[in-house]
Amino acid sequence: MIYLDNAATTRLEDSAFEAMLPFLRDEYGNASAVYDIARRSKKAVFGARKQCASVIGASPSEIFFTSGGSESDNWALAGAYETYRRRSKEHGSTAADSVASESVVSCGHIITTAIEHHAVLRTAEYLESLGVSVTYLKPDSEGYISPLQVTGAMRPDTFLVSVMTANNEIGTIEPVREIAAAVRNIRKDVLIHTDAVQAFGQIDLKDMAGCVDLLSASGHKLGGPKGVGLMYIRDGIKFPPYIRGGMQESGRRAGTENIAGIVGFGAASEYALSSLDERIETETVLRDRLISGLKKIPEVIINGSYSVGDHERRLPGNVSVCINGIEGESALIMLDREGICASSGSACASGAREPSHVLQAIGRAYDESKGSLRFTISHRNTEEEIDTAVIKITDIVMKLRDNRR
Amino acid sequence: MIYLDNAATTRLEDSAFEAMLPFLRDEYGNASAVYDIARRSKKAVFGARKQCASVIGASPSEIFFTSGGSESDNWALAGAYETYRRRSKEHGSTAADSVASESVVSCGHIITTAIEHHAVLRTAEYLESLGVSVTYLKPDSEGYISPLQVTGAMRPDTFLVSVMTANNEIGTIEPVREIAAAVRNIRKDVLIHTDAVQAFGQIDLKDMAGCVDLLSASGHKLGGPKGVGLMYIRDGIKFPPYIRGGMQESGRRAGTENIAGIVGFGAASEYALSSLDERIETETVLRDRLISGLKKIPEVIINGSYSVGDHERRLPGNVSVCINGIEGESALIMLDREGICASSGSACASGAREPSHVLQAIGRAYDESKGSLRFTISHRNTEEEIDTAVIKITDIVMKLRDNRR
Repeated sequence: MIYLDNAATTRLEDSAFEAMLPFLRDEYGNASAVYDIARRSKKAVFGARKQCASVIGASPSEIFFTSGGSESDNWALAGAYETYRRRSKEHGSTAADSVASESVVSCGHIITTAIEHHAVLRTAEYLESLGVSVTYLKPDSEGYISPLQVTGAMRPDTFLVSVMTANNEIGTIEPVREIAAAVRNIRKDVLIHTDAVQAFGQIDLKDMAGCVDLLSASGHKLGGPKGVGLMYIRDGIKFPPYIRGGMQESGRRAGTENIAGIVGFGAASEYALSSLDERIETETVLRDRLISGLKKIPEVIINGSYSVGDHERRLPGNVSVCINGIEGESALIMLDREGICASSGSACASGAREPSHVLQAIGRAYDESKGSLRFTISHRNTEEEIDTAVIKITDIVMKLRDNRR
Repeated sequence: MIYLDNAATTRLEDSAFEAMLPFLRDEYGNASAVYDIARRSKKAVFGARKQCASVIGASPSEIFFTSGGSESDNWALAGAYETYRRRSKEHGSTAADSVASESVVSCGHIITTAIEHHAVLRTAEYLESLGVSVTYLKPDSEGYISPLQVTGAMRPDTFLVSVMTANNEIGTIEPVREIAAAVRNIRKDVLIHTDAVQAFGQIDLKDMAGCVDLLSASGHKLGGPKGVGLMYIRDGIKFPPYIRGGMQESGRRAGTENIAGIVGFGAASEYALSSLDERIETETVLRDRLISGLKKIPEVIINGSYSVGDHERRLPGNVSVCINGIEGESALIMLDREGICASSGSACASGAREPSHVLQAIGRAYDESKGSLRFTISHRNTEEEIDTAVIKITDIVMKLRDNRR
């Protein structure tokens, strides 16, 4: 098997597995209890919190474990809305009241982008159903959102800006720091969230805490287990829970802690941070090798920003292409028969037949986006695997094109 | 170590651990993808769905995996409110409009109990902040809620009844089937939810599907892993997601599936179902032995319903007592030194210093509830452990009482 779908999920790192094992066996204490076995669970959670915090330069007290990236994204948007709603209620008015020209009471305004993950987009749509206005910024042809676009969309009732750190389909790395600074420059009280699920542990985010107020990440995208994620909430931010109940996670996320999952996420984060430079280098070389191979196929477009060796504007492991004259889904099935795992559009939307919203947003025509394939590389892949993949992909594309004639 | 806190969490069953292992190693495919390794993940999730469904006599398509009992409870209440809100909007009116005497638009009404888990109570309180009315029924001195109490509280705008299957602190098993039948008898369109976290896999619930519309359960309370739970949603019920995004769980719960966790929950459910009668018998005998031992201590009150051998009105493994003249927390610390794990109030509320809301609701005075201890037994406990525990507890109580004089 040649696994080239690391943006969908990754193999659990051995160190993460080893760290989890005790907590799946004898160390089963509930971290909320007071006895010895429970204290060991609590201590393990604290250790993991520290490991995860380091990835983004946060303090451990700013990290709140969730069940994954989707929960974190839902929480970020719903929690920001809840905060705005309460503040409006407490002040007996809303931000809109301060604008003489507006007489209708505002339910607030969110700025996000058209290329966010569905966990953000669907939650934004839900908030729209509650009366919130949402601006979905359209990226340029490479998938970029500019700080000027964001500030240009700001309104007096804007309470949240949510722009992803890196796109899951086309790998474009957004200028989140610059966007955050530009927003701050205009208003201090707008919450800034970034969905960093695809970037956490993959690129250098050590200065991210403090730049943004809220950040989502997921364990299984960086060699941790599935079923665990986190939200960074900047110190001093008032932010309500999304899962209410017990006092776990300082009262911000109820529910018995998934100790093994959290510990695995922590170990994976530690590994990711310590190996970051090396992995970026390896993945960038493999990515460039794959892209160079795929470019030899006629009528192939590279999606997103691309130049050889660049890992500042494109994720080191991401290859996204539109191949004219083929159906992505058919290609995936044939690739599977050859033992190659890849995806078309994002894995989460698989099963859905609509063309990718990301490819649409960067201007791909319907026919082009039908032939999209995404290969996402890990540092565990080898040059031989990439070369084999290029040969197989080329072969499959030729066959599919032949069938069409 | 003598572990008597199985209502807080349980040791992972060996069969569950074994079932999980492959999905923590080589079988890491994302169930949403199309290739071979992903199909195996998908198949495993389906198998687990079947195993979990059997516990309550549901069909697999009625089971939706979540991150745990707290998420399920939050989802049940928030989703029911969302359903009511949409229906009211679509009809351009609310249930209250049908009542001539009410002119103000209603935000709806929920009936629940004063002894629910905090995951239900805190969500109910949150919905109150949105304008929903909530009736918190007070139980009798043994912790029971009667069907008549529920129907007596019903209003034209009631959209949800949520009564737990069994109480986590005092072990009282509620007459949920009778409550559901009584509610149905009056109105067909009221959603009926039960938090079955403490009952799922512990008592016979094979006829529960169909009786209720919504049911919450958690994996780690029955020998499954932490970080996974489920919601049963009866076929034909329109119910929105709480975590929005991808199309996982038939579009009802977004986020990459926690395959290992789900598979472990499935295996634990299968074991729980196949061993149910045997476990109930063992636990009931051990429980009665512990209660009989504790009763020899002067001034001990058994909380909840109790008669020897009964497992219809009290959970087989639950022992909850109020011991006069001691502080529960101090006793726990001394028990810990003797290697005995127990709790005072519910584990989720540990760290909070308020007296248990459940003990308050059944009429315990503040001074009585301060001396509360909960021991929750599994079939893995032995008579020797129980006898040792009785000796140690008696000894500790005597010491604590001596110190007070």
